[in-house]
Amino acid sequence: MGPGPSDVHPRVLRAMATPVIGHLDPQFLAIMDEVKEMLRSTFRTANEMTFALSATGSAGMETCFVNLLEPGDEAVVCVNGVFGNRMSDIVGRCGGKLYRVDASWGSPIEPQQVQEALRECKPKLVAIVHAETSTGVLQPLADISRIVHEAGALLLVDAVTSLGGTDVRVDEWGTDAVYSGTQKCLSAPPGLAPVSFSPRAVAAMDARKTKAQSWYLDIAMLRNYWGGQRAYHHTAPISAVYALHEALRIVLEEGLEARFARHRRNHELLRDGLEALGFRFVVDPPYRLPMLNTVWIPEGLPDVPTRRRLLDEYNIEIGAGLGEFAGKVWRIGLMGCSSTENHVNMLLSALKRIMQPA
Amino acid sequence: MGPGPSDVHPRVLRAMATPVIGHLDPQFLAIMDEVKEMLRSTFRTANEMTFALSATGSAGMETCFVNLLEPGDEAVVCVNGVFGNRMSDIVGRCGGKLYRVDASWGSPIEPQQVQEALRECKPKLVAIVHAETSTGVLQPLADISRIVHEAGALLLVDAVTSLGGTDVRVDEWGTDAVYSGTQKCLSAPPGLAPVSFSPRAVAAMDARKTKAQSWYLDIAMLRNYWGGQRAYHHTAPISAVYALHEALRIVLEEGLEARFARHRRNHELLRDGLEALGFRFVVDPPYRLPMLNTVWIPEGLPDVPTRRRLLDEYNIEIGAGLGEFAGKVWRIGLMGCSSTENHVNMLLSALKRIMQPA
Repeated sequence: MGPGPSDVHPRVLRAMATPVIGHLDPQFLAIMDEVKEMLRSTFRTANEMTFALSATGSAGMETCFVNLLEPGDEAVVCVNGVFGNRMSDIVGRCGGKLYRVDASWGSPIEPQQVQEALRECKPKLVAIVHAETSTGVLQPLADISRIVHEAGALLLVDAVTSLGGTDVRVDEWGTDAVYSGTQKCLSAPPGLAPVSFSPRAVAAMDARKTKAQSWYLDIAMLRNYWGGQRAYHHTAPISAVYALHEALRIVLEEGLEARFARHRRNHELLRDGLEALGFRFVVDPPYRLPMLNTVWIPEGLPDVPTRRRLLDEYNIEIGAGLGEFAGKVWRIGLMGCSSTENHVNMLLSALKRIMQPA
Repeated sequence: MGPGPSDVHPRVLRAMATPVIGHLDPQFLAIMDEVKEMLRSTFRTANEMTFALSATGSAGMETCFVNLLEPGDEAVVCVNGVFGNRMSDIVGRCGGKLYRVDASWGSPIEPQQVQEALRECKPKLVAIVHAETSTGVLQPLADISRIVHEAGALLLVDAVTSLGGTDVRVDEWGTDAVYSGTQKCLSAPPGLAPVSFSPRAVAAMDARKTKAQSWYLDIAMLRNYWGGQRAYHHTAPISAVYALHEALRIVLEEGLEARFARHRRNHELLRDGLEALGFRFVVDPPYRLPMLNTVWIPEGLPDVPTRRRLLDEYNIEIGAGLGEFAGKVWRIGLMGCSSTENHVNMLLSALKRIMQPA
């Protein structure tokens, strides 16, 4: 019940134990094709270039930047938590010119802030986090997308924590580059980064004057490995692809809307219980993530010892605060298979025993 | 029986199906420590900085270059197959100045060639492939290492295919940066890249003036995640680490010397059988890899249809030729759990039935 990895479904664990076959075996290529198709359904996109990178969600972030930016390109990065900060770091490593749009931790980025930034620069892309795992903020994207495209820029979105747990409408929201992880609301083990690129983003990559600085994450080669040519690039993590395949089947069997409703329902149950115990939420109600609940640690309740007791005595992991929230905030995940009424009851009961002994 | 992934031991498959716990859970940190210790034994090194990157072997290659090279640095790359070519590509992406030392495909690099290159430049590193998976060449390293260090350069070694199947003596051979993969002679699924860096290599990284161009593969941060501080960087692929942990236990239970002897023995058995069927080996005997056997496809035997029949009728995968060997050479893997007498017999019998029907 931390910020991920979430509990993995037994069917997915079983898939992980499937014997490994060759990464160019026709049977494995068929599995890759099905993963692409199911990722399109989950991202709600028709983007041809939708697949899973052979590394974790963080590499998904890096992939989007190193393939879209060339040295000297301008980029606007919206920062209201750890992951916006990380994006800024990566822009620097790409030799990009960075314009930051900052909001306080726990608040969303306002469309007007992006509008103002776009008066001061002519960026190739605007990057923003849909679900800030460090703060629990759900970022509305529709208005910002319109502003970004009116300025002729590409919209790059971090959907690591949101995909599979709340709506991610890649096509409807005009998202040009989006990445996610497998270990949050998809409830597969960590190890792959689902990505999707719009035709606009692909055109921008095709127009590059320089090679991407990363060989491993170079979409120009990866598209021929996951695409029609099946050109050898690297050896895909076969077992992780099996796992994602089974996890996506489970997501689509449940149905996206039903899955989102479940995440909302369990979030509300947790919220009511935590508030009854005296916890206050960090984020205002309209911007709360259902799968990642951030609460201020109540005065008098020690951070590390309490989390340690939850782990040692109750076998429950919750997440520590990161960055400026360290020691002040807890992050409670209700992601994928971990978003159940039993999980909520288990945590609330344990906290109650710890906070109100005897 | 291709160039990897190899068969995965049932114990490793079972480890993959272990429920996923948090990547900062004390129990998982203990597993990471054991993986580091077992990798040191397998690499035959005392290097503190020995761990597994959260991506496949190809990312191991990229990690070594992007952390050791800065723009303008000179690098000598030895090229006698696909993977030396790939190293050259990556040097360019790092902004490095490339000096190539070429040998024909199927032959090793001669120490004298490296000596000559080092008269023409003053490189930061010399990179070489220990086991060229595209050609089947085992590269002797001791003499070249001496020459490289006399010139004050670092030695970077690709041990993707050799580790766990033939001797890799990181300390004795003065290897400064080495990377491998999990899906070859370690017989774990693909997905991680074991790496080890000498104190000299670490000093070179500490002396950098610029950040590494990759955030995901930045050793300056990864060392604090795998090292004492356990600073959050990314979410490790938990299940893949479980698998590597179990695979390394199996390697060390068998014993390195016994494992190498088994790989040699089965290689000899395969060699005798293939030669009896009229196959000729690509590589001269002293330089043949025991785990990756390259043979010229005999005249009259069609490449793709024969491999397809092996797969469809006999459930055996062997590897196609890559690059200039495409259509001319087969690559037959006897790696880790796939290096058994039964595998050899199975392939030889199937080939015999195809080549000498009734």
